[in-house]
Amino acid sequence: MVTYAAPINDMMFLFEKLKDNPHYCELEKYKEVNSDLAKDILEQAAKITENLILPLAKVGDEIPATFENGAVRTPPGYKEAYKKFIEDGWVSLSCDPEYGGQGIPKTISAFFDEMLSSSSLSFKLYSELSIGAYNCILHHGTESIKKKFLPKIVKGIWSGTMCLTEPACGTDLGLLKTKAVEQPDGTFELSGQKIFITSGDHDLTENIIHLVLARTPDAPSGTKGISLFLVPKIQVKEDGSLGPRNGVSTNSIESKMGIKGSATCVLNFDGAIGYMIGPKNKGLGSMFTMMNLERIVVGIQGLGISEIAYQNALNYSKERKQGKTNNSKTKNLTKLLKKINFLKSQNEANLIIDHADIRRSILNMKSIIEGERALSFWLAQQTEVSLHHSDKKIKQEASDFVSLMTPVVKSLFTDMGMEITSDAMQIFGGYGYTKDQGIEQLYRDNRITPIYEGTNSIQSIDLVFRKLINKDRNVIGRYIKSIEEEIKKNKNHPQIKPLAEKLNYYLKTMINFTIWIEKNMKVSKDDVSAACNDYLKVLGLIALSYSWLKVLAVSYKEMNTNKKFFEDKIETANFFFKRVLPRIDAHYNSAISGTKYIMDFKFN
Amino acid sequence: MVTYAAPINDMMFLFEKLKDNPHYCELEKYKEVNSDLAKDILEQAAKITENLILPLAKVGDEIPATFENGAVRTPPGYKEAYKKFIEDGWVSLSCDPEYGGQGIPKTISAFFDEMLSSSSLSFKLYSELSIGAYNCILHHGTESIKKKFLPKIVKGIWSGTMCLTEPACGTDLGLLKTKAVEQPDGTFELSGQKIFITSGDHDLTENIIHLVLARTPDAPSGTKGISLFLVPKIQVKEDGSLGPRNGVSTNSIESKMGIKGSATCVLNFDGAIGYMIGPKNKGLGSMFTMMNLERIVVGIQGLGISEIAYQNALNYSKERKQGKTNNSKTKNLTKLLKKINFLKSQNEANLIIDHADIRRSILNMKSIIEGERALSFWLAQQTEVSLHHSDKKIKQEASDFVSLMTPVVKSLFTDMGMEITSDAMQIFGGYGYTKDQGIEQLYRDNRITPIYEGTNSIQSIDLVFRKLINKDRNVIGRYIKSIEEEIKKNKNHPQIKPLAEKLNYYLKTMINFTIWIEKNMKVSKDDVSAACNDYLKVLGLIALSYSWLKVLAVSYKEMNTNKKFFEDKIETANFFFKRVLPRIDAHYNSAISGTKYIMDFKFN
Repeated sequence: MVTYAAPINDMMFLFEKLKDNPHYCELEKYKEVNSDLAKDILEQAAKITENLILPLAKVGDEIPATFENGAVRTPPGYKEAYKKFIEDGWVSLSCDPEYGGQGIPKTISAFFDEMLSSSSLSFKLYSELSIGAYNCILHHGTESIKKKFLPKIVKGIWSGTMCLTEPACGTDLGLLKTKAVEQPDGTFELSGQKIFITSGDHDLTENIIHLVLARTPDAPSGTKGISLFLVPKIQVKEDGSLGPRNGVSTNSIESKMGIKGSATCVLNFDGAIGYMIGPKNKGLGSMFTMMNLERIVVGIQGLGISEIAYQNALNYSKERKQGKTNNSKTKNLTKLLKKINFLKSQNEANLIIDHADIRRSILNMKSIIEGERALSFWLAQQTEVSLHHSDKKIKQEASDFVSLMTPVVKSLFTDMGMEITSDAMQIFGGYGYTKDQGIEQLYRDNRITPIYEGTNSIQSIDLVFRKLINKDRNVIGRYIKSIEEEIKKNKNHPQIKPLAEKLNYYLKTMINFTIWIEKNMKVSKDDVSAACNDYLKVLGLIALSYSWLKVLAVSYKEMNTNKKFFEDKIETANFFFKRVLPRIDAHYNSAISGTKYIMDFKFN
Repeated sequence: MVTYAAPINDMMFLFEKLKDNPHYCELEKYKEVNSDLAKDILEQAAKITENLILPLAKVGDEIPATFENGAVRTPPGYKEAYKKFIEDGWVSLSCDPEYGGQGIPKTISAFFDEMLSSSSLSFKLYSELSIGAYNCILHHGTESIKKKFLPKIVKGIWSGTMCLTEPACGTDLGLLKTKAVEQPDGTFELSGQKIFITSGDHDLTENIIHLVLARTPDAPSGTKGISLFLVPKIQVKEDGSLGPRNGVSTNSIESKMGIKGSATCVLNFDGAIGYMIGPKNKGLGSMFTMMNLERIVVGIQGLGISEIAYQNALNYSKERKQGKTNNSKTKNLTKLLKKINFLKSQNEANLIIDHADIRRSILNMKSIIEGERALSFWLAQQTEVSLHHSDKKIKQEASDFVSLMTPVVKSLFTDMGMEITSDAMQIFGGYGYTKDQGIEQLYRDNRITPIYEGTNSIQSIDLVFRKLINKDRNVIGRYIKSIEEEIKKNKNHPQIKPLAEKLNYYLKTMINFTIWIEKNMKVSKDDVSAACNDYLKVLGLIALSYSWLKVLAVSYKEMNTNKKFFEDKIETANFFFKRVLPRIDAHYNSAISGTKYIMDFKFN
């Protein structure tokens, strides 16, 4: 069985020392959210995720969600845990107090998202889309819709879904066919089939609020004819009480490689009553409010699963003895122990943590994970500024950074999640491949994250074709400038200087790559399309290094307050700059090789 | 359901045009194995793998091998298929005619290994270790043991296993504890527990012949006190007929992430009667005869699973329509079709194969797979020379190359198998994560290959610490020289020249890396240990490019005989040199960064 201890120390370090966005600190809304409150929340969060939720992961894998007689049943224990979960107010953590929420900023709630993902992604998914639905309704719903639906979603007694995908339409939403026909009373009747609906049906909440993309009969084709509808599983009367079943039924649930505790549903809409949310034919834009925040959370899922895989690989490497190492320190210790007859046999094996290659593998995980957590903390600040700052320009600039980093965080963290869970399995050897240890489940559970909410390739296309330059605002240029400033700040620091120079070297590569993209955007879009994945990785690695550079500056400055902690940070940063950052070379050198030979290829 | 068509064309191309090892062509033994015979065998092999064995993959995943009342039962259909499999002589394909084999060289039988791996790895494993046991007994058994056991193993009515691992001893065999006590009649009684025994028990054969590593009571500790024993599941009388059950029993079978049709057993030896194979205390050496060949076959498993994943991803990309592409060709075609009113809607999506990024991903798979197949064909020739050439020096040189490439093929092909099955899943999007499509099973099944027969990290340590320089024979130097000669041959060829130069550039990097390793071997073994994985990847990428360079030379020369085929090869080679080979940059730049910060790190 895997174990888990929430990394509160690292989270509190970020919360206390890396709140470096002055505009975030200006937000009136969060003036009272101090370290004590943060610590209190994180400790409570650690308790519930470590004790109540962690055991649900294995249960859900062994006894998946089932579909019988038209209804979905969650795995044993989910119902009881969910009850406690909402009673303690965890769904409402980041929601607006106006609707019963606790108004906690994402700088804290994102840590909770990470902990939940570490302990059980399947369980998390039952409330995750509720927050998505909440955000979508909050921003685009009418007052009466908000009043009617939000308080119950915030309480967690109703949950939410996102209904986008159809059998012939995944990435390309322009192809969607679900119909919505307006009724005399202003409501709509929806008909069609939606697939891959996470938490599309289950037995944890009284009602499920579906947010559904569909077309009105007169809508133009393609993405410009899509509207958004709120469709409850059970109709809601004017007074908010439950009425009869709506015309939504579950057709089946998917049998999947992982996240088996989570019900992934095929939903049939047969004249289901729905309410239009936001303006007609602009549904995709409204849905993106939900989707963009959700994409960041998917990135955090990858981070959370990486963290628990890392913890278990590290623990195992400190228990398992195998082979003798070349490690000079261990060798000297062995000699000494033999001299004093402590070691029985000449053949006593070393702990695998003493082997250089295992250390390298574990530090690789650690340096990626902590870099990601720092980047995600930076992004949480930007998100709050983009939502709540009073200055429009500052708000827009933050929003641009959030847009830029959303596909990066989604793709990079989830791909790295595969690398880390895979490396963790390798450390367990044969045991890693068996069900007993639980490591292989992390690998399978995480494997959905590079796929859902838009595959990682789609994210990279989104990044390159839509985010670098956004309505003539040179977002990437501004981001590069902020990194250059951070490098400049550190260039005279004796210890940081060599790492800052390394980042500077690779930043130049990224700048060249960006120029290459801008140039080819005019002359060969194919070349750009085939380079998107590599560009995303390069930008992601730069973003992680940028985060590490800021962590380094703090670490040297604060060294005396907690020597062990900051030395650990400095060495881990060292690893990142020396062993992870150089991956940029391979991405850049292969991406700029053109595509004529790719586009001309005749596949049999 | 996945589909499969054996890539006979590519195999026959290699067999006919790339038998470039003159010493292989000198082997008397195989003088009569011509193209007609090869084609005939491959066509029969295609038939049985495509029709009989492919369906067993899904069955075995859905209804895994079971363990009940002390006996293992294989999945439904395995028994009938195995019967046909051995009746048609497939186990005996590469075995010596003296024991009933067909004497077919590995240049053909390795292709069959690939096909079997593509169609069902679980099913393959039931006969794979039989060949391992056959080789081990053939090389180290006495005449009477050979006579008694080999004919039945070759026929397939008895099968074989390798029993190495124990609960506390995986990578480090020096720790093994199983005891073997000599009896007055010269036999031994074995006691102990072995775990992770592939095909350790099943219902396909009359008897199972275990090859077991154990210690005699007087044996020195560590790896120098290990002997090898043959222990049948059912005792065999002098006349070869079956006697009573031996003291070997199955304790349990593993519940695993994949290859669920294959029974992975915990075996208890309780005074089981065994026969020593080879000299006392030299058991590890004898077992390595089995293990080295087996490691190459595991590499081929990775290749086989990659091939079927690639085929299915390619097929799906030619059926699924999603999104509009930037692809200039498709755009022009769309315009034309619209003009003549062929396309109904402006929003008609393109096939995903027309998207540059999907094309890139599929060509990435293809360029790796075909490079691997060519490398593995080269290795099959070397193996045959190492086993059968009459000139001792030539034999030794071939054997050194086989030793050098064994860890590379094992690790590189299996890691690439993960990349390729993962990329194939991405192409299927959400469907790839569901059980229906079968793609996710390939990903799970292949995930054992980087673990078993020595994890890929162990392979890389084996490569760097044992294989580069072998008893003062500069194996790597000779390998580098052979590549340099091939580059030289092509340096005036107008089309090949730029690619040969690219290879030359990266070969220089590998030479520098090798020099770095030789230097640090003396001053910092830790640095070398932490660089082994990267070195293996660099050597592997160079080896694949070397294979592609030879394919290129043939392709330009033979162009007129089969234009489409050779143009395809040339473009695929192009892709490899431009987009895959540059990965070397990242491996080299991160590997040579030292390890002080890794070895000094204090893990909490």
